[in-house]
Amino acid sequence: MDKGAVVLCSGGVDSTTVLAIAQEQGYSLYSLSFCYGQRHKIELSAARKVAQAFNVARHLILDIDLGKIGGSALTENVEVPKDRSLNDIAGGIPTTYVPARNTIFLSYALAWAEVLNIYDIFIGVTAVDYSGYPDCRPEYIEAFETMANLATKTGVERRMIRINAPLIHLSKAQIIKKGRQMGVDYSLTHSCYDPTMDGKACGRCDSCKLRRKGFQEAGIVDPASYVYV
Amino acid sequence: MDKGAVVLCSGGVDSTTVLAIAQEQGYSLYSLSFCYGQRHKIELSAARKVAQAFNVARHLILDIDLGKIGGSALTENVEVPKDRSLNDIAGGIPTTYVPARNTIFLSYALAWAEVLNIYDIFIGVTAVDYSGYPDCRPEYIEAFETMANLATKTGVERRMIRINAPLIHLSKAQIIKKGRQMGVDYSLTHSCYDPTMDGKACGRCDSCKLRRKGFQEAGIVDPASYVYV
Repeated sequence: MDKGAVVLCSGGVDSTTVLAIAQEQGYSLYSLSFCYGQRHKIELSAARKVAQAFNVARHLILDIDLGKIGGSALTENVEVPKDRSLNDIAGGIPTTYVPARNTIFLSYALAWAEVLNIYDIFIGVTAVDYSGYPDCRPEYIEAFETMANLATKTGVERRMIRINAPLIHLSKAQIIKKGRQMGVDYSLTHSCYDPTMDGKACGRCDSCKLRRKGFQEAGIVDPASYVYV
Repeated sequence: MDKGAVVLCSGGVDSTTVLAIAQEQGYSLYSLSFCYGQRHKIELSAARKVAQAFNVARHLILDIDLGKIGGSALTENVEVPKDRSLNDIAGGIPTTYVPARNTIFLSYALAWAEVLNIYDIFIGVTAVDYSGYPDCRPEYIEAFETMANLATKTGVERRMIRINAPLIHLSKAQIIKKGRQMGVDYSLTHSCYDPTMDGKACGRCDSCKLRRKGFQEAGIVDPASYVYV
C-alpha cells in the first residue's frame, strides 16, 4: 500500500517546498487549504495551481469561520503592518497573528488523516524566519504530536501519527534553495498578506519582506510581481 | 476584572452541567457551539436555550466543515448504531466517533479565549461513561493543555491556559445528581444522535442509552421525550 501524507498548503513558498519534500520522500499527497476569511484569498488560487502542479491525490479546501472569532489583521478590517524592519519582524507577535491558527489547521489535518488512514502530516513552519508566531516553534510541534497520538483512534491503536515540519530549522533562503534544487516553480506561489485586486504583491508587508529577503539571500530571482519595488 | 471562561456547549447533559459548575466558580460565561454537519442539528437549539437560561455573556455558534472530511455516522448518511448493550458501548470506538472532533472544538475555544483575553476553557468530557472516544481521557486533556500553552501568545506571555474538565471522573448519574443540586433544568437539554423531525429522542442510540441509564441510576426522572420507551 502506498503511504500518504496530509500536507497543509497555503500556496506560499514554505508549504510548496514541503509538498516537494513529501513527494520526494515517496508520499502520495493530500493537500489541505483553508478559506478562513483571510483578506489574501488569492492564496487559495495559488494553492490550487500548486496542487495541480504536484498532481496531488486530492486537494481539499475547507471553509472555516475564523473571521467570527476575530483578533487578527489578516481576517479583520485592520491595517496590515507595512515597512517594518526585519528586526521588528523578528521581535514580537504582530497583529497579523491569527489566534491558534496552526492549531486549528493541524486539528483538521489530523481529522482528515484519520479518515484517510494516513499517519503523516506535513506543515511548512520555520522557527528561523518565523515572523514571531508562537505556533511555529519546534516545542509546539512536538506537543501537538503528543496530543494527536492521545486524541485519535489511530493513536489508540498504537500507530504513530507524525507531525513533520521539515523546514523548521531552515531560513527562508535555505528553503528557497532547497526547493529550487528539487525543481519547485515558485512563480505559482503567493505570499503577500495584502495583495492588489489583480493579485500583485504589496512588497511591504512582513510576508513580502521575508520572501524578498529570502530570494535575495538565496541569489535567486523572485518571480513574484510587486507593486512596490 | 471579572474572570471569563469559554465553555464548549453541545446542548447536552454534560456541557450544561459544566456551565453550571463554571458559573458557580464565579466565571462569566462565553459559550461556544458548532454547526458541524451533525445530523442532530436540533442540539443547537437546545444549546441556545441553555445559553439563554444561564444568561451567558456571549454565545457563539461556528459553522465548520467536518462533513467534507467525513468519517463519522454523525455527519454522514450512515446508520447511527442502535440498541447496543452498555457493555458494547463501553467497549470500543463506535461509528459515531467524529475524527479529532474534540481537538478541533478545543482549538477554536483556544482561539476565542485568546481573543477574549481569557485563560480558562471548560469541556464536559467524562472518562467514565465516555462511549469509547479517545479524546475524552484525562491524558488527552492534559496533552492539549500543554500544547495550548506553547501555541499561543497567551502561553508565550507566561499566563497559564487551563483546560478544565470538571466531569472527567464522574459517571453520568453523578453528573446529573451534581447538576440537579445546582438547579440545572435538564428539560432544556438534548442528547439523541438521531432525533425525529419534531425533536423527539430515539431512545436507542448510544447517547440516549447512556442518558437514560444516568437518570435511572441517579433516581431522577428524565424530562426528555422518547419515541422508544
